[in-house]
Amino acid sequence: MTTEAQKQENLDLPSAADRVPSLAGEMMAEFFGTMVLILFGVGVVAQVVAANIGDHDSIAWAWGLGVMLGIYVAGRISGAHINPAVTLALALFQGFPWRKVAPYATAQVAGAFVGALLVRWNYSEVLAKFDPGHTIKSQGVFSTLPGNGTLPVSDLGALRDQIIGTAILVLLVIAITDARNSAPMANLTPFIVGLLVVAIGMAWGTNAGYAINPARDFGPRLMSFLTGYGGAWRDQYGNLYFWVPILGPLIGAVVGGALYKYCVARFLPREAHSPTN
Amino acid sequence: MTTEAQKQENLDLPSAADRVPSLAGEMMAEFFGTMVLILFGVGVVAQVVAANIGDHDSIAWAWGLGVMLGIYVAGRISGAHINPAVTLALALFQGFPWRKVAPYATAQVAGAFVGALLVRWNYSEVLAKFDPGHTIKSQGVFSTLPGNGTLPVSDLGALRDQIIGTAILVLLVIAITDARNSAPMANLTPFIVGLLVVAIGMAWGTNAGYAINPARDFGPRLMSFLTGYGGAWRDQYGNLYFWVPILGPLIGAVVGGALYKYCVARFLPREAHSPTN
Amino acid sequence: MTTEAQKQENLDLPSAADRVPSLAGEMMAEFFGTMVLILFGVGVVAQVVAANIGDHDSIAWAWGLGVMLGIYVAGRISGAHINPAVTLALALFQGFPWRKVAPYATAQVAGAFVGALLVRWNYSEVLAKFDPGHTIKSQGVFSTLPGNGTLPVSDLGALRDQIIGTAILVLLVIAITDARNSAPMANLTPFIVGLLVVAIGMAWGTNAGYAINPARDFGPRLMSFLTGYGGAWRDQYGNLYFWVPILGPLIGAVVGGALYKYCVARFLPREAHSPTN
Amino acid sequence: MTTEAQKQENLDLPSAADRVPSLAGEMMAEFFGTMVLILFGVGVVAQVVAANIGDHDSIAWAWGLGVMLGIYVAGRISGAHINPAVTLALALFQGFPWRKVAPYATAQVAGAFVGALLVRWNYSEVLAKFDPGHTIKSQGVFSTLPGNGTLPVSDLGALRDQIIGTAILVLLVIAITDARNSAPMANLTPFIVGLLVVAIGMAWGTNAGYAINPARDFGPRLMSFLTGYGGAWRDQYGNLYFWVPILGPLIGAVVGGALYKYCVARFLPREAHSPTN
Repeated sequence: MTTEAQKQENLDLPSAADRVPSLAGEMMAEFFGTMVLILFGVGVVAQVVAANIGDHDSIAWAWGLGVMLGIYVAGRISGAHINPAVTLALALFQGFPWRKVAPYATAQVAGAFVGALLVRWNYSEVLAKFDPGHTIKSQGVFSTLPGNGTLPVSDLGALRDQIIGTAILVLLVIAITDARNSAPMANLTPFIVGLLVVAIGMAWGTNAGYAINPARDFGPRLMSFLTGYGGAWRDQYGNLYFWVPILGPLIGAVVGGALYKYCVARFLPREAHSPTN
Repeated sequence: MTTEAQKQENLDLPSAADRVPSLAGEMMAEFFGTMVLILFGVGVVAQVVAANIGDHDSIAWAWGLGVMLGIYVAGRISGAHINPAVTLALALFQGFPWRKVAPYATAQVAGAFVGALLVRWNYSEVLAKFDPGHTIKSQGVFSTLPGNGTLPVSDLGALRDQIIGTAILVLLVIAITDARNSAPMANLTPFIVGLLVVAIGMAWGTNAGYAINPARDFGPRLMSFLTGYGGAWRDQYGNLYFWVPILGPLIGAVVGGALYKYCVARFLPREAHSPTN
Repeated sequence: MTTEAQKQENLDLPSAADRVPSLAGEMMAEFFGTMVLILFGVGVVAQVVAANIGDHDSIAWAWGLGVMLGIYVAGRISGAHINPAVTLALALFQGFPWRKVAPYATAQVAGAFVGALLVRWNYSEVLAKFDPGHTIKSQGVFSTLPGNGTLPVSDLGALRDQIIGTAILVLLVIAITDARNSAPMANLTPFIVGLLVVAIGMAWGTNAGYAINPARDFGPRLMSFLTGYGGAWRDQYGNLYFWVPILGPLIGAVVGGALYKYCVARFLPREAHSPTN
Repeated sequence: MTTEAQKQENLDLPSAADRVPSLAGEMMAEFFGTMVLILFGVGVVAQVVAANIGDHDSIAWAWGLGVMLGIYVAGRISGAHINPAVTLALALFQGFPWRKVAPYATAQVAGAFVGALLVRWNYSEVLAKFDPGHTIKSQGVFSTLPGNGTLPVSDLGALRDQIIGTAILVLLVIAITDARNSAPMANLTPFIVGLLVVAIGMAWGTNAGYAINPARDFGPRLMSFLTGYGGAWRDQYGNLYFWVPILGPLIGAVVGGALYKYCVARFLPREAHSPTN
């Protein structure tokens, strides 16, 4: 916990040779950023569901703060997408290089996998007490289910929800980071994006647990499958479900990015707002 | 989720010809800004009331964050009023052109309508389970009722509440955005205005569900009427009620704007505070 | 809800002649700032206690946000003390003119009185239903009680609590606003001071309802006495209690201000930190 | 509660001779910063556990805000480590002088001791009512227990948790304060670090009450032992436990600091980001 004064010291770090962000560096940043997101996101669900500490608002806040913290870790190196749906939207609408899309997504899934594995390891005693059979009862700690496993929502209802929810996410992420619009300054964009995810959790978490991020859902789901959750790929109806929080967010990202570009951004003034205001 | 570095890329967008904000652009921005507000505001009430996920604090936070996000989308193009009462106050007290008041209000109501329709569509299964008859039980998801439908508050009590509540909103919105006062910088005004709405929800939500915005209430109410809520225009007493959250906020906006102008702003120094502090 | 662009328009306001802050202007600002604080603070307690909407966290948040909003209204004109204990500390330790202390305190108490009266009026139906006899059951909506009226805390325990709690408040308010320390910039000081009050509500609200502000307690208490609460001056034990949340905060402010000045500020570098960091 | 204008006055303070931060000054700052942290952190647990006001989210928020406030007090003088684990990491990875490590840690423990003593004193009546025998029932107000005293977590499980949790804390504290990464500006770093601790409380508080700070745990534990809690050094199984929240955080700090330095920071550009963005 250091302040302005301390920041000057931070400049004394490893040799300059390593400093040009390479694809390897960008992948490492996406890995760490997404791992941090999942350490908080899956962590809070484990704490609330398995240990009964906190409530749904804790879940919404900690996921949002996890996004914020993941962006602060990775931001300057990789742009901190930490979500393949965001990477796809930026490739389609913001000129992000297509050749980096697969590496970014791979790093994101790997980071989510490792983050979830750390939660799984740390909370093993509590999870074993809560759900010794590794059933669907604690599957929701790691990956999402239609209607959060209990509400009467079909897989198609969950797919629709993921399209809309991710469209909202991507439209707003691009809006908030658009320097020609009212982007926050003083490096507080990660905070505002975190609040966006808090709000999505509070308002769009009913039908499909607001995955809105294929890496967030697939990485922990795969991890849970490999550590004893045989039913990880299916929902409470017995249907294969894992594809919904992958396909839905990818479609939603295209919708949200297109809406912002063609309906909002075209009306923006050409110059960025003044940096001193 | 991009950061400072990424923001530079955002400058490569559609052709310059479209960039002068026209009335059409401003209306589009008001439409999107208000739609975003409602996607979160009506969304969170649906989630809390119909799906029983979250509590009243979730409602207060998500409405406030919805306001913040709506302002970030629309801010640079239209000024992000996203509320006809605010538009009226700015026309009366801040020189906003009167000829734009009706177009702005129309766009705001349309945005609120579409936002509520998306919530209605996405949460259709959950709403059908919670209240299959489309009664007043779930009417409150979309539009407001005196005493939130259960407390002993009369329509006149709700009207008084809407006048006071909107006067507080408008006085503070104008104060917070007044560069001669202590307006936040670094483009964080939308965040602080969002917190203002969080606080109103926590302290002024008892008598009339803190509509404080004619578009927020009328757009979703009309949508609910057109999608099966026959009683949308009336309250739990059987009275026509829809006019209260329209008239109250308009009167309150005049009161709040006048109070700030004649009681506070006249004592301010003439120069804006320094942008670097 | 306007943004940077809009802020420019705000400059077109009343004539320049009125613009030099006079004592009248400062008193008006303190009046409005404290009224805003109470509109949210007493408002949220009414909503939680009498209408059962929200919980103790809502109370902590809305009081804190009320402080923030009061400061945004009054900040540039009067410095936004909105608390006689703060005014006293600034007179003792920061050179605030002694001749202004009584006028400031008067305006603060008057603002708190009017804010509480507006809450009393607006929530009259709900209060009448909850506590028709105007007993101690709803007295706590307006003014504080030892142990919040139910916990086994004596008047002396409450006095001790008010001294410590206000010492914490004043030490931190002066620290946060000290440009030679790490004061927030971009006009976000009101936000951080608001969070300070949120934290005090969560951690120091047990023994005496965190009055920590003589105006906050005395203004609404007087108002409640004049509108039907005959027992307003006494606690649940029948003792005269109103003096505790006046005397305690005044003593605490001296303690907190002295601790900061003599134990912390003397070690600060002489120059303010750089405005661009 | 003052604003920009007022900040100028704050410059008129004690004589310049005292202003060069000496080790004594740094120790005093660490003392006050950690005391503030504990005044809010132990205070909120006392309020929630002994007085039943608030819930686990209150605990998470008030600890986080306490960290923020402690940093605002101490930041410019000592760098505001307020945690021996952070001091150790900065010595290992950021060039903080080794000769200051023991003095800093001593001041931090002393500050935590005094902060906890003030809470103990102020809440003595409420604690006496809640747990007259000073048993493990209220021991958790002051110091941490495996599984918060009730969940089936072993001491080794708690140690593992403290290593991971503190690694997350330190990795992110160094990331957030690294000017070459996306460090927040406008002196809002303390706020973001506070949010980090909020998130840790929500997601990593199950196994060992997120001590993540040897001073936070040892200082209040020693105080409780000296004021009547004979069992302060042991957990609910009767084992000596006090070493876990000391050793775990120290190991975790090394892990987190090393991960950031060797996996993230090496990919950062050499120059700090622009101060005006």
